[in-house]
Amino acid sequence: MDSLDVHSEILFNSYMISRVGVTGIKKQASIIRNGKTNVLSLVIEVAVDLPSYMKGSHLSRNAEVLAEIVDDSLQNPVNSLEDLAKKISLELLEKHSYAKHAEVSIDADFYLMRGMREDKESLEPFTLHAISISTKEGDKIKTSKHIGVEVLGMTACPCAMETCRSFLINDHSNEETFLNSIPVISHNQRNRVTLFIEVPDDKIVNAEDMIDIVESSFSSPTYNILKRIDEGRVVWQAHENPKFVEDVVRDVLTKVVNKYTDLPDEVHVSVKSVSEESIHKYNAYADRSTTIGELRSKKMEN
Amino acid sequence: MDSLDVHSEILFNSYMISRVGVTGIKKQASIIRNGKTNVLSLVIEVAVDLPSYMKGSHLSRNAEVLAEIVDDSLQNPVNSLEDLAKKISLELLEKHSYAKHAEVSIDADFYLMRGMREDKESLEPFTLHAISISTKEGDKIKTSKHIGVEVLGMTACPCAMETCRSFLINDHSNEETFLNSIPVISHNQRNRVTLFIEVPDDKIVNAEDMIDIVESSFSSPTYNILKRIDEGRVVWQAHENPKFVEDVVRDVLTKVVNKYTDLPDEVHVSVKSVSEESIHKYNAYADRSTTIGELRSKKMEN
Amino acid sequence: MDSLDVHSEILFNSYMISRVGVTGIKKQASIIRNGKTNVLSLVIEVAVDLPSYMKGSHLSRNAEVLAEIVDDSLQNPVNSLEDLAKKISLELLEKHSYAKHAEVSIDADFYLMRGMREDKESLEPFTLHAISISTKEGDKIKTSKHIGVEVLGMTACPCAMETCRSFLINDHSNEETFLNSIPVISHNQRNRVTLFIEVPDDKIVNAEDMIDIVESSFSSPTYNILKRIDEGRVVWQAHENPKFVEDVVRDVLTKVVNKYTDLPDEVHVSVKSVSEESIHKYNAYADRSTTIGELRSKKMEN
Amino acid sequence: MDSLDVHSEILFNSYMISRVGVTGIKKQASIIRNGKTNVLSLVIEVAVDLPSYMKGSHLSRNAEVLAEIVDDSLQNPVNSLEDLAKKISLELLEKHSYAKHAEVSIDADFYLMRGMREDKESLEPFTLHAISISTKEGDKIKTSKHIGVEVLGMTACPCAMETCRSFLINDHSNEETFLNSIPVISHNQRNRVTLFIEVPDDKIVNAEDMIDIVESSFSSPTYNILKRIDEGRVVWQAHENPKFVEDVVRDVLTKVVNKYTDLPDEVHVSVKSVSEESIHKYNAYADRSTTIGELRSKKMEN
Repeated sequence: MDSLDVHSEILFNSYMISRVGVTGIKKQASIIRNGKTNVLSLVIEVAVDLPSYMKGSHLSRNAEVLAEIVDDSLQNPVNSLEDLAKKISLELLEKHSYAKHAEVSIDADFYLMRGMREDKESLEPFTLHAISISTKEGDKIKTSKHIGVEVLGMTACPCAMETCRSFLINDHSNEETFLNSIPVISHNQRNRVTLFIEVPDDKIVNAEDMIDIVESSFSSPTYNILKRIDEGRVVWQAHENPKFVEDVVRDVLTKVVNKYTDLPDEVHVSVKSVSEESIHKYNAYADRSTTIGELRSKKMEN
Repeated sequence: MDSLDVHSEILFNSYMISRVGVTGIKKQASIIRNGKTNVLSLVIEVAVDLPSYMKGSHLSRNAEVLAEIVDDSLQNPVNSLEDLAKKISLELLEKHSYAKHAEVSIDADFYLMRGMREDKESLEPFTLHAISISTKEGDKIKTSKHIGVEVLGMTACPCAMETCRSFLINDHSNEETFLNSIPVISHNQRNRVTLFIEVPDDKIVNAEDMIDIVESSFSSPTYNILKRIDEGRVVWQAHENPKFVEDVVRDVLTKVVNKYTDLPDEVHVSVKSVSEESIHKYNAYADRSTTIGELRSKKMEN
Repeated sequence: MDSLDVHSEILFNSYMISRVGVTGIKKQASIIRNGKTNVLSLVIEVAVDLPSYMKGSHLSRNAEVLAEIVDDSLQNPVNSLEDLAKKISLELLEKHSYAKHAEVSIDADFYLMRGMREDKESLEPFTLHAISISTKEGDKIKTSKHIGVEVLGMTACPCAMETCRSFLINDHSNEETFLNSIPVISHNQRNRVTLFIEVPDDKIVNAEDMIDIVESSFSSPTYNILKRIDEGRVVWQAHENPKFVEDVVRDVLTKVVNKYTDLPDEVHVSVKSVSEESIHKYNAYADRSTTIGELRSKKMEN
Repeated sequence: MDSLDVHSEILFNSYMISRVGVTGIKKQASIIRNGKTNVLSLVIEVAVDLPSYMKGSHLSRNAEVLAEIVDDSLQNPVNSLEDLAKKISLELLEKHSYAKHAEVSIDADFYLMRGMREDKESLEPFTLHAISISTKEGDKIKTSKHIGVEVLGMTACPCAMETCRSFLINDHSNEETFLNSIPVISHNQRNRVTLFIEVPDDKIVNAEDMIDIVESSFSSPTYNILKRIDEGRVVWQAHENPKFVEDVVRDVLTKVVNKYTDLPDEVHVSVKSVSEESIHKYNAYADRSTTIGELRSKKMEN
């Protein structure tokens, strides 16, 4: 052993380390989606395990793997962020021969044209997340990859709406029928949904479809440009469609089950909805982490 | 000169530095307010200027000054956060004899009991800010101090409300009179207001009064605990009282002018309102930074 | 059912939700530690599960539970942050009768006197974390509680030190013996360690002891006030004691095993060390999450 | 007036608002630099003033201006981020006819190839900032634009190095001459420098040159990929070149004055250096905000 190779010093009676890695690495990557090249700004975290007998992990290899694979994508775009993550996790196991486990997590800004009307479309921001985990068992390597989307939208509260309706009816009992026929005031607020789906190797899960699923599960999507009438329409749609965080999570789960009929039961799915409550100084949230098989077989689960 | 005192090395033909200091110092302090001791968690930044002929500022003196004054307040509580800031800025000039200018900025978590009903009160979080600037001119030292409050509340949009009212009237023209008499749906959201007021030495500006001014300038204050009926009342109040960020800023300014009739014209006042728009993925804001004299003399300014 | 109780609406063929709760709730609490009352600033997250047949969780009950238990601690201080978390998680199951699972997570600023010398001591900031999870199985409730500490310190890199030593020896081969006897230059940086230990009901794990374990596992602890000689001593100590993030994690694990001989094997322990690398724009980290029994039985694990 | 145009309501005896705008708008833009197209992820804030007689600013016009100018750059790349900011500030004055003042601030991720050796180069992250302010006076519009860069590097402390050298000499007085000839241990850490320069209309200030100025003013630049020998070289260079935050600021100022001899005296320059102290839990910083004329005429200023 090279005496300067402090990392390779042999330890006796020490502990293995689950993850040794680097975090907060900023890079750009190019992804081809639907024939269009997207340049994405990434923040990357990678790690491998370290056996008990080895003093240190060779951290510079992580930066080399990322330079090789991520920087290269700018010339040779990859098909998806989760494919990029998978390539990295496999190469990490290759470069760190002592490791049995590699984890890669990537966050990326992502933009799509959106608008209430065709002449008022503009670029709206989204966030993509990709995860890949590779594990060596003997000669075999098992790899998983996951794609996640993070989307902002709007929810209006169904409970406060009924309370306010009852206030109105109380004061104007002769208008009860009319008041029961229109959306009435409630609190509404920004809602942030994160949806992750595992992607088996022989399947494709399109991040843009996932964004569509999430946007259609809010009380209303939100937009960059809203002229006065469009603003009214967004508000109207949100109040026609009031939702708790629980409703948002359940609606996303239902749409995932309905859309991805070809995904096998063991595929992992998770959804989280966070509501930046306008009537409180704190946030409300709901989440569910499960498999698509569990969701398919749901009966009265509880 | 001590050869180890690298900071005191004499430079020729160099630049002065406006501020050299430390930031992100976390401490606790005790303040007595209305006879009650409050223990506050602080984040502190302090800086002094450095003349062109001196290599480095003695940074350890900043930490010593803070230990002396802030740690000591836990045994001997001070009257206000801005008094604490002032004590520090004066002591900085004392300890850094080469400095002509000292700046201190303190952020603190602060809590007050709040509730829609007496039996549903609980501790609500606020933020205090204090600033003190001391300047040496010859033998004289001029010091200013400022107290700031940061408060979360709720605004409902007046414009979207009128648009939605027009939608309703359009569909139900026979209900026009009734629809003009009730609050109708709009977008509403969390709003964050920061208000700063300069405090002359012979005056007292109470942070709790400033919090009251801000809370009463939202469409509605917000609360930790809201049972169903209370939630309805908050929503109702917000929609009876729709406001743009501009309205919030102007209402705070008006109340400051009306409340602090004893403050001299040159007292500095600033207000900022940030709305976490429920219908957009971005925030809207308005701000004004001025003197109370300017506000008093306002006519059609523009 | 009350028609306004939208949350209690019965659903058919829907999904259960793993967690529905609130996050970012700011409060103060009082803890008695070693006969001394500490007022802590908290940020709290609580959640319970929601069965598939129920539309919504009663979120206002969470705020009520927190007002009852946390606000009350200001008058009646509790013994530890993890006891506070446990009280809350049990009360959540009580108040949400439909829930089988309750989770509580609390972050708190915490301060201790520290210094290189007695006359230069001052308040240094730390972070405490507490977690409690309660689960109902039939009539029985199982509860766990965990206490965590987050501590900043300093590491110097053992590998770069040996490389720089080899540079020096290369240029000054006649000084080889001397150069092998002194600490030589390396990169060093801020390191953030988080240590969690599960606390069985009949045991006490003192957060201050955990902070001591972590501080003694860095290359050197760091301090608020460092006069010139003390600064030299901290640097010297760090370079006498160079450490990778892996070393920090392993040293903390070893000390936990040695200190807590009375904790049962199934007690959960986790450690993470993050190094804000001075030679890179990104951070390095290592972590291990395991049980104290696993650590005790470690042999050449890998 | 359109009765739905709530913003245009005429107010009497109200206050003007300094800034009404939107913040946190995320977009992508294309910039051509040295014949190469860069796709940048932006975060944008824009605001205009509002006269006292007008109830509200037309916020949707801001989003329209950004869609028009920023989204369009993806097809028709602009020359620089500061040109983009200027285009926006001028268009804001055009669209908000009541405004006399428009401010635009843009942050952008930016990447350059960097490395200690040609075969170990990789994309390193930087941040660009652009500011433009346009003011209408009668028929005339005055516009300024500023470009800023934010760069991470490394500093080693000159003071702790001399203290540690004195410790060594004290213990090994016979090695004094040798010890005075080599770099000895010190604390070192990540340092973040922000440099802004105003860009007159007829001049070009290249952000890449500014990044070079900053990187050469640290004790050493830092890199993504560092094999063992390179790591040693970075550490060595940093310790051959120890610097306080004050030194970093002064060296950047000196280089700016020397490089930009063609910029007129009134051009605004500001520099800030923040050191994430490895021996403290808090940061140290120094800053100077001035004009290039002031810097040129500096004598013993203080």
